[in-house]
Amino acid sequence: MTRLIKKHSKSKGLKPGAVVYVGEQRTEKVTIDIIDYNETELEEKRLEKIEDCFEFKDSSTVTWININGIHDVSNIEKLGEHFGIHALNQEDIANTGHRPKFEDSGEYIFITMKMLNPKSEDGIESEQVSIVFGKNYVISFQEKEGDVFDHVRERIRKTKPRVRFMGADYLAYALIDAIVDNYFVVLEKIGDTVEELEDELVSNPEHEDLETIYALKRQMVFIRKAIWPLREVAGSMDRTESELVHDFTKPYLRDLYEHIIQVIDTVETFRDMISGLLDIYLSSISNRMNQVMKVLTIIATIFIPLGFLAGVYGMNFDTSASPFNLPELSLRYGYIFFWMAVLIIGIGLLIFFRRKKWL
Amino acid sequence: MTRLIKKHSKSKGLKPGAVVYVGEQRTEKVTIDIIDYNETELEEKRLEKIEDCFEFKDSSTVTWININGIHDVSNIEKLGEHFGIHALNQEDIANTGHRPKFEDSGEYIFITMKMLNPKSEDGIESEQVSIVFGKNYVISFQEKEGDVFDHVRERIRKTKPRVRFMGADYLAYALIDAIVDNYFVVLEKIGDTVEELEDELVSNPEHEDLETIYALKRQMVFIRKAIWPLREVAGSMDRTESELVHDFTKPYLRDLYEHIIQVIDTVETFRDMISGLLDIYLSSISNRMNQVMKVLTIIATIFIPLGFLAGVYGMNFDTSASPFNLPELSLRYGYIFFWMAVLIIGIGLLIFFRRKKWL
Amino acid sequence: MTRLIKKHSKSKGLKPGAVVYVGEQRTEKVTIDIIDYNETELEEKRLEKIEDCFEFKDSSTVTWININGIHDVSNIEKLGEHFGIHALNQEDIANTGHRPKFEDSGEYIFITMKMLNPKSEDGIESEQVSIVFGKNYVISFQEKEGDVFDHVRERIRKTKPRVRFMGADYLAYALIDAIVDNYFVVLEKIGDTVEELEDELVSNPEHEDLETIYALKRQMVFIRKAIWPLREVAGSMDRTESELVHDFTKPYLRDLYEHIIQVIDTVETFRDMISGLLDIYLSSISNRMNQVMKVLTIIATIFIPLGFLAGVYGMNFDTSASPFNLPELSLRYGYIFFWMAVLIIGIGLLIFFRRKKWL
Amino acid sequence: MTRLIKKHSKSKGLKPGAVVYVGEQRTEKVTIDIIDYNETELEEKRLEKIEDCFEFKDSSTVTWININGIHDVSNIEKLGEHFGIHALNQEDIANTGHRPKFEDSGEYIFITMKMLNPKSEDGIESEQVSIVFGKNYVISFQEKEGDVFDHVRERIRKTKPRVRFMGADYLAYALIDAIVDNYFVVLEKIGDTVEELEDELVSNPEHEDLETIYALKRQMVFIRKAIWPLREVAGSMDRTESELVHDFTKPYLRDLYEHIIQVIDTVETFRDMISGLLDIYLSSISNRMNQVMKVLTIIATIFIPLGFLAGVYGMNFDTSASPFNLPELSLRYGYIFFWMAVLIIGIGLLIFFRRKKWL
Amino acid sequence: MTRLIKKHSKSKGLKPGAVVYVGEQRTEKVTIDIIDYNETELEEKRLEKIEDCFEFKDSSTVTWININGIHDVSNIEKLGEHFGIHALNQEDIANTGHRPKFEDSGEYIFITMKMLNPKSEDGIESEQVSIVFGKNYVISFQEKEGDVFDHVRERIRKTKPRVRFMGADYLAYALIDAIVDNYFVVLEKIGDTVEELEDELVSNPEHEDLETIYALKRQMVFIRKAIWPLREVAGSMDRTESELVHDFTKPYLRDLYEHIIQVIDTVETFRDMISGLLDIYLSSISNRMNQVMKVLTIIATIFIPLGFLAGVYGMNFDTSASPFNLPELSLRYGYIFFWMAVLIIGIGLLIFFRRKKWL
Repeated sequence: MTRLIKKHSKSKGLKPGAVVYVGEQRTEKVTIDIIDYNETELEEKRLEKIEDCFEFKDSSTVTWININGIHDVSNIEKLGEHFGIHALNQEDIANTGHRPKFEDSGEYIFITMKMLNPKSEDGIESEQVSIVFGKNYVISFQEKEGDVFDHVRERIRKTKPRVRFMGADYLAYALIDAIVDNYFVVLEKIGDTVEELEDELVSNPEHEDLETIYALKRQMVFIRKAIWPLREVAGSMDRTESELVHDFTKPYLRDLYEHIIQVIDTVETFRDMISGLLDIYLSSISNRMNQVMKVLTIIATIFIPLGFLAGVYGMNFDTSASPFNLPELSLRYGYIFFWMAVLIIGIGLLIFFRRKKWL
Repeated sequence: MTRLIKKHSKSKGLKPGAVVYVGEQRTEKVTIDIIDYNETELEEKRLEKIEDCFEFKDSSTVTWININGIHDVSNIEKLGEHFGIHALNQEDIANTGHRPKFEDSGEYIFITMKMLNPKSEDGIESEQVSIVFGKNYVISFQEKEGDVFDHVRERIRKTKPRVRFMGADYLAYALIDAIVDNYFVVLEKIGDTVEELEDELVSNPEHEDLETIYALKRQMVFIRKAIWPLREVAGSMDRTESELVHDFTKPYLRDLYEHIIQVIDTVETFRDMISGLLDIYLSSISNRMNQVMKVLTIIATIFIPLGFLAGVYGMNFDTSASPFNLPELSLRYGYIFFWMAVLIIGIGLLIFFRRKKWL
Repeated sequence: MTRLIKKHSKSKGLKPGAVVYVGEQRTEKVTIDIIDYNETELEEKRLEKIEDCFEFKDSSTVTWININGIHDVSNIEKLGEHFGIHALNQEDIANTGHRPKFEDSGEYIFITMKMLNPKSEDGIESEQVSIVFGKNYVISFQEKEGDVFDHVRERIRKTKPRVRFMGADYLAYALIDAIVDNYFVVLEKIGDTVEELEDELVSNPEHEDLETIYALKRQMVFIRKAIWPLREVAGSMDRTESELVHDFTKPYLRDLYEHIIQVIDTVETFRDMISGLLDIYLSSISNRMNQVMKVLTIIATIFIPLGFLAGVYGMNFDTSASPFNLPELSLRYGYIFFWMAVLIIGIGLLIFFRRKKWL
Repeated sequence: MTRLIKKHSKSKGLKPGAVVYVGEQRTEKVTIDIIDYNETELEEKRLEKIEDCFEFKDSSTVTWININGIHDVSNIEKLGEHFGIHALNQEDIANTGHRPKFEDSGEYIFITMKMLNPKSEDGIESEQVSIVFGKNYVISFQEKEGDVFDHVRERIRKTKPRVRFMGADYLAYALIDAIVDNYFVVLEKIGDTVEELEDELVSNPEHEDLETIYALKRQMVFIRKAIWPLREVAGSMDRTESELVHDFTKPYLRDLYEHIIQVIDTVETFRDMISGLLDIYLSSISNRMNQVMKVLTIIATIFIPLGFLAGVYGMNFDTSASPFNLPELSLRYGYIFFWMAVLIIGIGLLIFFRRKKWL
Repeated sequence: MTRLIKKHSKSKGLKPGAVVYVGEQRTEKVTIDIIDYNETELEEKRLEKIEDCFEFKDSSTVTWININGIHDVSNIEKLGEHFGIHALNQEDIANTGHRPKFEDSGEYIFITMKMLNPKSEDGIESEQVSIVFGKNYVISFQEKEGDVFDHVRERIRKTKPRVRFMGADYLAYALIDAIVDNYFVVLEKIGDTVEELEDELVSNPEHEDLETIYALKRQMVFIRKAIWPLREVAGSMDRTESELVHDFTKPYLRDLYEHIIQVIDTVETFRDMISGLLDIYLSSISNRMNQVMKVLTIIATIFIPLGFLAGVYGMNFDTSASPFNLPELSLRYGYIFFWMAVLIIGIGLLIFFRRKKWL
């Protein structure tokens, strides 16, 4: 289930800048993967301990240090100290409830955002990804193993892809682009759900659909919270004058910005559509109630008067006391007249109902 | 059907700038039409292969290269290479789900937008049109043959129209203007539907109307997504300081901007009106329910008490056991008194209902 | 009826700047009225043909050329050529669906706006008025004869009014002010309708009221579309640095701006109130439904159980077969006991309903 | 009653700047009160005629000229001429429907705003107050006698209050502050009404409450129209660079600005709450309908089947013709069995309803 | 109970800048706590009278003067005079209904905001906290004892925390940070309530839930009013160029700003969710009404026609008078046929209802 507000209380009262893991309790071992490359060479390995990646800070090659697991904050602190990451940014990395943000500290650029995964059945899995990149290193922090970066890895492994000829900024861009691209996948999935639900609501609305609509609504609230601040992040990135971002990366950042705008557009459209779903649901329910009422009214309107008529001829007025008392009862065709009256009343009312378009 | 989010997944994971066709699967042959003209001369032809248009890049005449079909991306790549179009713009051309945008690259100006066609019965057909224009060429990319540019073609073919005396920028403007003009046609058609529906909803609302309202709503969402970003596009165009846009074209661009504002105004008005339709529908439904309830209540309120009365005189109290038991039954005018009571109760209730304005 | 989108299709495909009349079909003769004045002299006449007013362009007196009828576009073209009005502005004059706008071309200032008339019974009549003013002439274009400028004419005819001592800019201001003043008259009329409707809705809502509400809503949409862009127009007018606008006219322009803001405020207030009307209507309807339900429930709840009781004593259990079968029937006071039971049940239920505040 | 749009028509067609009283018809004599003071001296008197205050224009003492009654426009014109107030500002003073505004004419500062009075039972009384202040005079125009300035008067009369040591700008500020302070009183009164109404709506909603809600809504619209433009007025006042406003008055103006923001905040909050009231009302109504339906359903569902059962045993099938015809009627315990069936059905349905939580 | 508008009337009419306590009546003694520290030393004590803290104004150590209780305004006035706090700021401190604000007076920085406490059962307790800090002192004013600063106190008491090495600005920041951190606790509590309520509303909506929803809504209005202006406050703080704020505190202020944005985001999300709760409630209610109607309709539709049938055979047509009168009554299997008809009608209707998905 997607909680809308991450538990923040654990860190309450601690000094600002204290690196405290705020998120689900995890016990998995933290894994550290390195991809180190330049135009011609490529090295990939899984590190034993965090200290092993320190040497890459000042190497001439581009190094991607990917850390799966931020619940062991000592890693973040050690890395932070060696790579000169500000205590507050270290805190941001460990706080999985943080809002997407972009910060240019001069020495490095810090970006934190949400990676969405439509894996699970009952919703969307959100993972916080923080990216720190300097002159020739990119450090990415994820909450756990498994990500949307496989395509980036494959591109790096190829012989002569563009990524191998460009710097750390382009790699960082490629990672963010992969995350944003994945938003489309998530939104497509939601779009399909919305369209299916819409058809179902018009034809056969159930009380359970209300829960589905509300779950969708919450999902959109959740996604919106994750994606909305990205507009600002992308804007800052696009406008940044940091030396860490090369001119030839700029068009890609502008392209990224446009993609994010499109994601936000789509999210807003879906919010509108989901609000519309509630209208359809309510209107379908009220339509059905209308139909129920019509059936009741038709039956009651026909048979209550007829019941009265039958009641009349079931009365025990003493026919022997007076010729005025229920003379119909002793008519030769009395019973047949009765049924004719019944048919006339019944058919007359049916015609009335058809005129009213209730039938 | 107008999908709200184009399938984007196919291109996921590819390197940014990879020219991948994102859109409906098509098999038609791509056609390439050339109109090459200056003040005095005019040449029109259909090219065999894309390379045949390369010669026009640096000719002194104005050349309009119109490419119907972007599913064969090799054309885009070849053209892009020869005319110096940036890889990311090539990607934009092939991505039919792209947001309208304006980009001034210095060498050329790139515009992408949606062409709407009210052709199909069940909705609006949207086609992506990208326009690239440089000093004396305009390249337009469409998804398939058939467009709204026939009037522009006819104007070019005339002997001395304004378009023949002006540059590539004016031609590009004329194409965009033709697309925007067509939005009015689409909106008029929707306007007619809205007005018809409104009359129908007030007089005789059906459950199907809800689907129509919702379909209209989605159409407006779709059109809005296509048109809204044009405001920004037109603004950029109006303010551009590119040398490719001549001063005498500027007033036309401002005029275009105003037209787009008017289209957006109309779209917003329609959105308001369509929301209003839902209110009318719901209120008509609830009004009808009210009428159903009234009929039920009138019939039941009259005949249930009367039924009770008939029931009373159908009771079998032993009149012989006591003079107090149902003495009415043996009255000479008992039955007539009964019917008088029935009439008095019935008419009294009818008067009551008329007072309540239920009749 | 107030159409929300003017038919625009007629002009589709024509070259931009083509002066095409877009509006209702008209056959009346176009009339041209001239008022030419300075501080001491005044001349008023109706011209035979458009060329007769050309002489006034460079006269030292202030000349007001009022053209009633824009369906004969040749007049506009001739005037335009002589007075140097840009082709696009000529197109704007002839397009009755144009958005209010202000344009300063250097030689002249062009303003187009809507004149509203509350004349007709079933709504508001809108007429497009375009005003072009230069150094000492004001040309006003109306769709047909009959306008809100009579007060301005009377002021000019007086011996020493302010208008006679000021330039063409003040005259143009006076015309616009007359149009804006008239908006208040239209809004007052709508305000009265809204207040009447409100009283009616609370006391006695009818299904027809829904149509009235919706018609009001559309009227407000229409008026809003006409008036909203005026804010921008007035803003531009207020800030203009054109030499055509004298310093001593500026305070009047600021005053005009404030009036327009007030009109817009009122329009927004009315929109709010009309939305509120729908709430009142729906709530009144649902209240009435509630009352209908109460009557049904009271009657049914009292008489259905009583009917059952009467039914019980109408059963034919064989009293002779067993003393346990319906012994009540042969009691001396059986029938009287029955009526007492009926009264007790009836009165008991009435007390119950009064407790529930249904009576 | 608070009219939302003041009749503006009377002044229609008059030349701009014509000083015409626009407001309720009044016949009271206009009164003119003078308070003239400096640090040591104080003089208070009621003037006979407007000309008597002319002498104070250039006196070195601070003079507060308070005019109760603006329906005699000759006073305004005479004052205006002597104190150099622009014709358009004179018009603003006389137009009681004017929007709050701030204008710095260089020679004097002109402010117009609404004074609200919660005096009357059925709503809020609004009075237009215009304040003109120059170097050492403050002229205030009110619609009639009776205002919220008594506290200011008392402060001036005291021996050594701050106001006596400061200039006309501080006095003007003190008057505006008194008006704004009074808004809080009005809003508190409305807040109490809202809270009472809320309690009533939850416990016992009546149809009349809808009218109360709507009246509150209109009141808020009215107050909002009066107060909203003050934000801008206060902003202009705070930022003004007029020499008429001393530096030591500035912090007070900023404080005033904050108060106005707080008033606007409260107004917005109340609007939200009043919208919420409608939701509560509608939901309470629908809840009550639900209860009505439940009672009807419980009674009908129990007694209609029982009525049928009684009807069965009231049938006249000829028991003598066949042993299969209604054999129950001649059973020894038939009637007792019947009542047992009645009890079983009745109790069974009651249990069913309790399970459904309808009881 | 959280009142939405603090009684402001008590101070009405007083001169601006008059320090008047506006808040709940209190009688507790005001307590004054001092923490005075530098890098190496620490002194904590409770002062007897306000004058005892005057000596700390110019000491080289950082001094935190915490005053619990602002109802004794003489303390504020004495402190204000000694520390040079402007009269208007003194007024702000005493006015518990003040809007959060930031003011840089040059000599000191003044901040006022709300401290929220989720202590009480029936809502949220709000307390006004004003913070004044100068070069080496921080004065905090609270309404009463008990606050959220214990963690800050503990950090100061530790041997070598960061706070001991930094100035008064950092201490002020730490206090504000503690208040903002506590907002998360409050919001988490509300979040839990919302989620619980949501589950309850879907499964079993009660009329009381409406009151809970409305109470939540009011709470959010209240919190929003308290928190929303903080965005501006934090923005001013972040951008301030005051010498009182050191460069090394700046990143902490930016971090604070982000936290506040996140709080506001969450508040907005909750407002959305609470609006959604009302939709769920209304839809659940209408769903239940639907179910009630269905039960009524099923029972009535089956048994009213059957009752009519039984009524028919209860009629007393004289079978002896004619063979056409109720011949069914004397059939051998008449009663059995009757029950078969009953079963056929009953089962047929049940099948009909199942088809309609009412069962």
